[in-house]
Amino acid sequence: MSKTIPLASYLFTRLRQLGVGAVHGEPGDYSLRALDFIRPAGLRWIGNCNELNAGYAADGYARVKGMSALCTTYGVGELSAINAVAGSYAEYSPVVHIVGCPARKVYASNRLVHHALEVGNMRVYADMYARITAAQANLTDARTAPDMIDRVLEECRVQSRPVYIELPSDMAEAQVDGSRLSEPLHVEPSANDQVLEGAVVEDTLNRIYSSQRPYILVDGLVRPDGIVDEVNELARVTGFPTLAITFGGGIINGSLENYHGVHAGKFGSLDHTPYTDSADLALLFGPLLSDTNTQGWSAVPKEDITISFRRNSIDIGATSHELQIKSFMRSLLSKLDPSKISSKKPNPPLASPRDLLKSLSPPDPSAPIDQDTFYLRLSPFFRPNDIIICANGTSRVGGRDFILPPGAKLISSGVWFSIGYTLPAAQGVAVAQREALEAGQSPGRMILFEGDGSFQATAQELSTIIRYRLDVTIFIVNNDGYTTERLIHGLHEEYNDLAPWRYLEAPRFFGAPEDGSYAVETHDVKNWGQLLQVLESESFGDGKGLKMVNVRMGREDVTKNFKAALVLAGEQLLAELK
Amino acid sequence: MSKTIPLASYLFTRLRQLGVGAVHGEPGDYSLRALDFIRPAGLRWIGNCNELNAGYAADGYARVKGMSALCTTYGVGELSAINAVAGSYAEYSPVVHIVGCPARKVYASNRLVHHALEVGNMRVYADMYARITAAQANLTDARTAPDMIDRVLEECRVQSRPVYIELPSDMAEAQVDGSRLSEPLHVEPSANDQVLEGAVVEDTLNRIYSSQRPYILVDGLVRPDGIVDEVNELARVTGFPTLAITFGGGIINGSLENYHGVHAGKFGSLDHTPYTDSADLALLFGPLLSDTNTQGWSAVPKEDITISFRRNSIDIGATSHELQIKSFMRSLLSKLDPSKISSKKPNPPLASPRDLLKSLSPPDPSAPIDQDTFYLRLSPFFRPNDIIICANGTSRVGGRDFILPPGAKLISSGVWFSIGYTLPAAQGVAVAQREALEAGQSPGRMILFEGDGSFQATAQELSTIIRYRLDVTIFIVNNDGYTTERLIHGLHEEYNDLAPWRYLEAPRFFGAPEDGSYAVETHDVKNWGQLLQVLESESFGDGKGLKMVNVRMGREDVTKNFKAALVLAGEQLLAELK
Repeated sequence: MSKTIPLASYLFTRLRQLGVGAVHGEPGDYSLRALDFIRPAGLRWIGNCNELNAGYAADGYARVKGMSALCTTYGVGELSAINAVAGSYAEYSPVVHIVGCPARKVYASNRLVHHALEVGNMRVYADMYARITAAQANLTDARTAPDMIDRVLEECRVQSRPVYIELPSDMAEAQVDGSRLSEPLHVEPSANDQVLEGAVVEDTLNRIYSSQRPYILVDGLVRPDGIVDEVNELARVTGFPTLAITFGGGIINGSLENYHGVHAGKFGSLDHTPYTDSADLALLFGPLLSDTNTQGWSAVPKEDITISFRRNSIDIGATSHELQIKSFMRSLLSKLDPSKISSKKPNPPLASPRDLLKSLSPPDPSAPIDQDTFYLRLSPFFRPNDIIICANGTSRVGGRDFILPPGAKLISSGVWFSIGYTLPAAQGVAVAQREALEAGQSPGRMILFEGDGSFQATAQELSTIIRYRLDVTIFIVNNDGYTTERLIHGLHEEYNDLAPWRYLEAPRFFGAPEDGSYAVETHDVKNWGQLLQVLESESFGDGKGLKMVNVRMGREDVTKNFKAALVLAGEQLLAELK
Repeated sequence: MSKTIPLASYLFTRLRQLGVGAVHGEPGDYSLRALDFIRPAGLRWIGNCNELNAGYAADGYARVKGMSALCTTYGVGELSAINAVAGSYAEYSPVVHIVGCPARKVYASNRLVHHALEVGNMRVYADMYARITAAQANLTDARTAPDMIDRVLEECRVQSRPVYIELPSDMAEAQVDGSRLSEPLHVEPSANDQVLEGAVVEDTLNRIYSSQRPYILVDGLVRPDGIVDEVNELARVTGFPTLAITFGGGIINGSLENYHGVHAGKFGSLDHTPYTDSADLALLFGPLLSDTNTQGWSAVPKEDITISFRRNSIDIGATSHELQIKSFMRSLLSKLDPSKISSKKPNPPLASPRDLLKSLSPPDPSAPIDQDTFYLRLSPFFRPNDIIICANGTSRVGGRDFILPPGAKLISSGVWFSIGYTLPAAQGVAVAQREALEAGQSPGRMILFEGDGSFQATAQELSTIIRYRLDVTIFIVNNDGYTTERLIHGLHEEYNDLAPWRYLEAPRFFGAPEDGSYAVETHDVKNWGQLLQVLESESFGDGKGLKMVNVRMGREDVTKNFKAALVLAGEQLLAELK
């Protein structure tokens, strides 16, 4: 096979080969010609309302599919999206950002073209992107372009981080060697040094066998690290008490008996510190240990009892070993002999959110909905394979108490915490689910818990959900303002207020059809009776079309123990806890 | 006077001294403490729905008031706004961007805090901002902070470009020397070398006197350069044929007889090239000569007949003289002797949009509204001191034909052309007008011409307009998609389509009160009869509260001559015209 094909066709075909089924973005005149090649390559175009939102959507899609594509235009488009892509970098979400750039001759001409910052400074945006992407390619030469594409796509997958591709408008149709497409890309991490791997596996096993008070602690990078199954298997086989850090919620199968939910130091609904503070071994997976994710590092075990399992290293105490985690985990699990484990089940036993839920009496139907029990009581609503997204603030904190069925997935932020991220991310996830459905799989529902402030930041992507007839269930956690900020500082200050939108009119405003071709269901609830009625309704539960519930909650209501963390944050003391 | 005051108080007081009356932004926990000092300093807080929109709003406000303030939070906030601030840099809009950053000890700690990209890389955003701002200050020391603030504010004013201030959260309340506040800032440009100025004035005058076919060409930087009055005076005194480049529309008093509207090469409603191509002198003011602003530089005069009057230089042909424009213009006008001018009025006379308007017969009331005459026919609706904003695409192009009354101002983009900019910018302008009203002045109305695609990008700022009860009139130029992009490439491609919003439901959705405390008026028009009825209605014309007109126009309709430019752009040939 030796044929030439258009460069844009090469790029999109490579993306398709890596499992990407959709390109998110917004058109611009520098990118229009490239867009022509999306559909012929077997991909879908998802036109968002703006580029920041497209970046968020691509991030959400990538967290489910393992890679996604974002296409914007030079300058204005790529800069609008930069906050989303930086977040993808910080949280290891593999997004391929393709930027339609001016034709090559323009770069050489020293003339001022639209979207340029100033004459003679055309690559300033590429310089910025070099700081927040794992690899970059500037496709100015048809002979080298395919190789550059292959290299950045490989880096995207291997590092699980965004990459940046500049595609000049006169290059989209440039003819390149298409025969390379039959050679698969190299997306496997490099092999481990077998001697080193063997030694570290043995050391790890010895610590597992000899520990008297061990625990497994799971953070959110386990997912991009690709070891969700392995960590679940380790938890199951060892029977070790297993906890998550907030960002790692939903990774461990919620029905595993030795999974005790999220560890939030003394700021969670459950206090696991009596056990963790006296533990002699902590197996920490996929750590992204930000202040907010760990409540000022109060959920982080002491280094001398910790083995940290990271993407490219296993750190035993202060000693770091350069090893690829996936291969290491396979080796560890294959050599693990559970009969050698000496630790016993904790005594007293550790509680779990399941116990909390059981201890609740049915709510008074006329009582207001409270943060302390809302998330617990929501848990029976979840079904296998559902994907649940929690916005920053009260939802992310409340979501710690979710009890998830097998295959369900929880998405939230671990360090980036950009307000407005979650609605577009839900749209991206819903596209991934649509693709799964089309491929004959049985994806669960897309369920979003969204704050009112967060919704306002990126609300127009509801129209993208409607436009592409996606299936999304949204709970607006409506507490009339930036409640988390209020409790940090400025409880009654106007800067923490929001405009009083009529949230449930959103579907109509954003163009939902009224001919029955797409189901839209909205509910306004302010007490437990109303909420439970919605949750129990069959049509609401099917997750088809757009479901929106405006859940009115107290303006200053946060879960009891979380309030203490916010007070510390307000006094700028959270970061000093540990 | 020797008293200490909180640093944030110092900063906001300085802004107040420079005429800033409002701070746009979104709260974040790193910035909350600083926000407490806004109101006590006599400023207003305008809480936008997201930071990009806040940046656009601040830009709009700055174009009217000569300076504005934007406050965001570290990382996520400032990166969300970066596209707006880069646009302010490219188009000389003086925005002071204050970023609430983590406490100083966090920078030293090498720990991962929320909104940080990664450990050990805390100042990556500041590095990015250094590329798109004229001056930067990192306020880590109470002793030097006031001086740093003074220096960047001076640069903001003197360069008329955005500046960047990092305010660590533990510094907002740091005590600083407040006595400096009684010393005014130095915001005057440095004085010109009198010998040089005199020589260049004389050279310029000689060229003015001896020219047989001169013209004045006005671009949009005349406004930030602060010489609107001087350029108007020159046009009046010389009587020279005066034209604008698109970005410079609305700077010259529309009732001046020798003002002939916008020169768009062969792509405008009027063709002035028979005169300009044979001219022997072009006096070019405030040039920002991007491809789009000049139709591929076809509206740019040849260098050898041109004197370019820039902010910091007067360029006669290829020779550049370093001179401050304001002082130069005063000197030029004081020495100009109109009796020495030798040129005559052009023969045949140059036409103007006024002639075009006169030549139109009244429209058929049942005929659809067309791009070719919509903007011309709108002109009688305008009143003195109105501020009119035109979005990118068909509105900006159509707006070339506006005939503006005295004191009216037109805002559009000259090189940045970021979609979605204009609705938030209109909100910012409306705040500036509110302040003018409060100061006893008589501002005109804020009238926005907004495309449907543009509206979708930043629609939520309509809620900010409603929340603060601002007065804004909006014409949605609704052509069902990205019409300009369609005509460049992909006429019927889905990537140029938009979701079909129900635009006029926006006020209700975004929370407009229905108790009569704020007037909202909406109209759906698809033919001339309906449009004229709205325009003639008294309540619509008063400009109070929110007026929205959904103007339905043809999906592929653009002004006749503009279509040719779009075809060239689609063939990537526009940039080769000259």
